[in-house]
Amino acid sequence: MEELTHFDQNGNAVMVDVSEKEETKRMAVARGVITVSRPVFQAVTEGTVKKGDVLGVAQVAGIMAAKKNSELIPMCHLLMLTSCKVEFIMHEEASQIEAVCTVKTVGKTGVEMEALTGVSVALLTIYDMCKAMDRGMVIGDICLVEKRGGKSGIYRREDECCD
Amino acid sequence: MEELTHFDQNGNAVMVDVSEKEETKRMAVARGVITVSRPVFQAVTEGTVKKGDVLGVAQVAGIMAAKKNSELIPMCHLLMLTSCKVEFIMHEEASQIEAVCTVKTVGKTGVEMEALTGVSVALLTIYDMCKAMDRGMVIGDICLVEKRGGKSGIYRREDECCD
Amino acid sequence: MEELTHFDQNGNAVMVDVSEKEETKRMAVARGVITVSRPVFQAVTEGTVKKGDVLGVAQVAGIMAAKKNSELIPMCHLLMLTSCKVEFIMHEEASQIEAVCTVKTVGKTGVEMEALTGVSVALLTIYDMCKAMDRGMVIGDICLVEKRGGKSGIYRREDECCD
Amino acid sequence: MEELTHFDQNGNAVMVDVSEKEETKRMAVARGVITVSRPVFQAVTEGTVKKGDVLGVAQVAGIMAAKKNSELIPMCHLLMLTSCKVEFIMHEEASQIEAVCTVKTVGKTGVEMEALTGVSVALLTIYDMCKAMDRGMVIGDICLVEKRGGKSGIYRREDECCD
Amino acid sequence: MEELTHFDQNGNAVMVDVSEKEETKRMAVARGVITVSRPVFQAVTEGTVKKGDVLGVAQVAGIMAAKKNSELIPMCHLLMLTSCKVEFIMHEEASQIEAVCTVKTVGKTGVEMEALTGVSVALLTIYDMCKAMDRGMVIGDICLVEKRGGKSGIYRREDECCD
Amino acid sequence: MEELTHFDQNGNAVMVDVSEKEETKRMAVARGVITVSRPVFQAVTEGTVKKGDVLGVAQVAGIMAAKKNSELIPMCHLLMLTSCKVEFIMHEEASQIEAVCTVKTVGKTGVEMEALTGVSVALLTIYDMCKAMDRGMVIGDICLVEKRGGKSGIYRREDECCD
Repeated sequence: MEELTHFDQNGNAVMVDVSEKEETKRMAVARGVITVSRPVFQAVTEGTVKKGDVLGVAQVAGIMAAKKNSELIPMCHLLMLTSCKVEFIMHEEASQIEAVCTVKTVGKTGVEMEALTGVSVALLTIYDMCKAMDRGMVIGDICLVEKRGGKSGIYRREDECCD
Repeated sequence: MEELTHFDQNGNAVMVDVSEKEETKRMAVARGVITVSRPVFQAVTEGTVKKGDVLGVAQVAGIMAAKKNSELIPMCHLLMLTSCKVEFIMHEEASQIEAVCTVKTVGKTGVEMEALTGVSVALLTIYDMCKAMDRGMVIGDICLVEKRGGKSGIYRREDECCD
Repeated sequence: MEELTHFDQNGNAVMVDVSEKEETKRMAVARGVITVSRPVFQAVTEGTVKKGDVLGVAQVAGIMAAKKNSELIPMCHLLMLTSCKVEFIMHEEASQIEAVCTVKTVGKTGVEMEALTGVSVALLTIYDMCKAMDRGMVIGDICLVEKRGGKSGIYRREDECCD
Repeated sequence: MEELTHFDQNGNAVMVDVSEKEETKRMAVARGVITVSRPVFQAVTEGTVKKGDVLGVAQVAGIMAAKKNSELIPMCHLLMLTSCKVEFIMHEEASQIEAVCTVKTVGKTGVEMEALTGVSVALLTIYDMCKAMDRGMVIGDICLVEKRGGKSGIYRREDECCD
Repeated sequence: MEELTHFDQNGNAVMVDVSEKEETKRMAVARGVITVSRPVFQAVTEGTVKKGDVLGVAQVAGIMAAKKNSELIPMCHLLMLTSCKVEFIMHEEASQIEAVCTVKTVGKTGVEMEALTGVSVALLTIYDMCKAMDRGMVIGDICLVEKRGGKSGIYRREDECCD
Repeated sequence: MEELTHFDQNGNAVMVDVSEKEETKRMAVARGVITVSRPVFQAVTEGTVKKGDVLGVAQVAGIMAAKKNSELIPMCHLLMLTSCKVEFIMHEEASQIEAVCTVKTVGKTGVEMEALTGVSVALLTIYDMCKAMDRGMVIGDICLVEKRGGKSGIYRREDECCD
C-alpha cells in the first residue's frame, strides 16, 4: 500500500529524494471555479471588453504563482517550467468562472502542484478584484484534471468534479 | 451601485488608493476544505500523532503564505499582519479536512485576501503531502467567514458555505 | 554640501536611519520610454484591442515590481504603498511607448525608487513580450518627474527629459 | 512575418512552450547608462576608493536581480544562470556611468532579459544611493549588445546605442 | 513562569497576536563570528583594499537578509525597518571575522530576529566567497547583544559570548 | 595556491562561471547547534510531544531556506535541489539542540551553501520560538560536515567541530 512519501522513517518532513529519477517530459492540467453573483459575472464579462480586464490580471497572477510554487508549498521541488498558461471559461448559467492551468516541464518530478497553485491564485485574484461588489463569492472544485510523464504514467480524472 | 474598484476610469488596473483611509483594527476569517479518500484521512489523522505531521507542515505553509499575500495577488496592498493562525477541523464522516485561517492587522485596508490565501496554501500543502496516496482530492468551499474593521463594518457569512 | 547618505563615516553601506522622521503623505511620479520598431508599435497598439494585451501584462508587472522595490534595491526601506498605478502613452511618430508610474504612501521616506522600479520593470516586460519581433528596442529616459511630501518638499522636473 | 509569441491564438498571455527546445550554451550582454551631475560623478569615483562603495553595492544588486528575473517579468522562464557579472565604465566627459551585464546559461531559452534586468537594477541602485545629492539623474540607453546560442544564433548590435 | 508564546492552547503554531501593542521605537544588536584559516584571513583583509571586496558583498547580503527576515522565520511579524547596518571587526590573533548587525524600527514587536538573521547571512556570505580556499571555516557565537524598546525594556548581554 | 574565486581580475564580484562544468550528483551535509537554558530545552522536548512543535516548525523553515539559498547569498548559483532534509539531535547534558541539514542535487556546482543556510535558518527559528523564555541562547558551530560530487571530490570534516 502507498504511504505518505514526504516523511522519513522517523517522521521528519522531507523533500522526497528524486536524485535517481530520470528527467522526462511532464505536463499537468488543473482546474477550479469561482461562483460569483450576477452583477460580478456581468462586470467581469463586460470588463474584459471595455472597462478593465479582471481576467487579464488574474491570468498573469496565476502564471507568476505557478512559477513561485516551490516557495509556497514547503516540500515541493523547484522545477524549471517550460510552458505555463491559464485560461478561463465563463459558465453563465451557473454564474461561475472556471480557471484551467496547464503546465509543462522536463524534469524529475511532476508539475501538478504548479498547476493547482496557478489555478488557486488566479481565482483568488478574481475574488480580490471583485470583492467590493460581492464578498460572498466561493472558490471550489479545485482538482487535478490530467497528468502525464514520469513513472506513474498518465492520470486522467474521469468524473466531472464540478457542476 | 458598486463597481469594480481596481480599475481607473480608463480601464487601467490599479492598486486602489487608500492614502486617506484611517488605520483601524481589522480581522478576517476564511475557511475551505479538502475532500480526501479514506486512507488519506486516516494517514493524516494518525500521522499527526506518531508518524509525520502533515497538518503541522500545512499550518506553517498557510501562515507564511498569508504573509506573502501581496506578492501573489497583484493589486493587494502590503499589510503588516499583527496576528495569523491556521487551524484544522477533521470531518470524519465527510472525509474532509477543514482549514480556518484568522488574520488581524492594524491598517488602512482589510485582510480578507490574506486569510483566503492562507487557507488556500494550507490546503494545497495537504494535497502535496498526500498526493502519492490519492490524486483525486478536491479543494473547495473556500470563502470568507467573517470580516471586521474599516468603513464597511462587520461582514458575517450567514449560510454554511460547505456541507 | 550634500553627501552620499547611504554610507556611515567609516564607508559602510547602510540603510539610512529614518527612525526619527515623521510619517507624512508622500507621492512620486516616474516615467521612461521604450523605442520600438514600427511593426512592434503596431502589434502592441492592435494587440491591446483584439489579440493579446502586451500593455496589460506590463501594467501588472510594473505594479508588482514597485511593491518589490525594497527587495531589489539593497539600501531601500520597505514601505507600505497606499496607491500604485502604471499608465502608458503611445507616441506614434517617435515609435515610442511611454510608461508613467505613480506611487503614494504614508511613511517616513519617499517613494521615488518604487516609481522608478515600476517604470523600469513595465518597460522590460514590453521588451520581453516583443523581443521575438525586434531585439533592437532601447529603453531610456527613465527619470523622476515629481515628488511630494517629506522634509525636502516638492520636486518637479522642469525640462522634458525625453523627446 | 514574425509575431508576438507570448500570446496564444485566443489572445491569452502565455509562457512560450519551450519543452521541445534543445539545451544549448547561451549568453547575453546588455548595457545602459545613468547620466549624473558632476558632484555625483566625483563622489562615486572617489567613493570607490576611500569612502563608500556605490558601485560595489550596485554590482551585487544587479547580479541578484538578474537571478530574480523570472519573478519580475511575468512571461519569462526560470533559468539556472551559470555565470553573471556586472561591470561599470566611467565616462567622465559625458558624466555618465555605464553598466554592462553579462549572463550565461545552459538552457532552452536565452538570457537577454536577465542581462537587461541586471543592468536596470544596477543603475537604479546607483540612483538610489546618490539621490540625496541629485534627483535629476536619468537612466537610459538600456539595450541588448550581444546574444549567442539557441536557434536564432548570434545577435550583435551594430550601432552604438548611446553616446 | 514564562512559556513558549508561539503556540495557542491547542498546540497550534501561531504568529503571536500583537494587535494591542503600542508602536514604540525599538532596536537590537546581534553579533557572530566566522573562524577562518590564515590564508583566508589575509585574503579578506587585503581584498578589501585592492582585489575584491568580500566584506562589501557580505554587508549588502546581511542588510538584504535582515529585510527578508519575516519570509525566512515562519512566525515572525513583518516590520518596516527604519535603519539597518552590518559592520565587521577583524580579530587577527584569533583569525576571526566578527559581524555586528544593528537594526531599528518603530513598531509593535522587536527586531532581534532581524539582527540575528542579518549577522547569519553576512557570515554565510563570507563562507561562500572564501570556500574555494578553505572548507573548514566555522560560524559561531551568534547571539543577541542588546535590545531596547517595548514592554520588556532593555536587554544587554553581560558576559562576552565569544572569545 | 588557491584564490578567492568570486572576483574577476579587476576585483569585480562575480558569480563564478560554471558553464563548462559537468552535471554530476552532489550532496552536502552541514550542522550547527543552539545552546539553550534548561527550561527551554525541556519545553522544546516536551513540546514536540504534547504542546506545540518547535522542531517541526524549524524543520520546515530550514528546508524552505535551503531552497531560497541563491536569493540570500549573492554569488550563489540557483540549483534545483533533488532532496533536502533537516534533522535534530537533542544533547541533554550540554543543553544543546543540534541541527543537521542534508541536501542533494544533480548539477554543476555543490550544495554546501544550501545545507549551511538550511541549518542556520532552522536554528534561528528555534531561537525565535523560544526567545520569550530566554534571550541568551547562542547559535554556533555551524560547519560543513561532508560534501560529495564534482571535481573536488569528497570532503569530510575530521575533527568534531562542536562539543
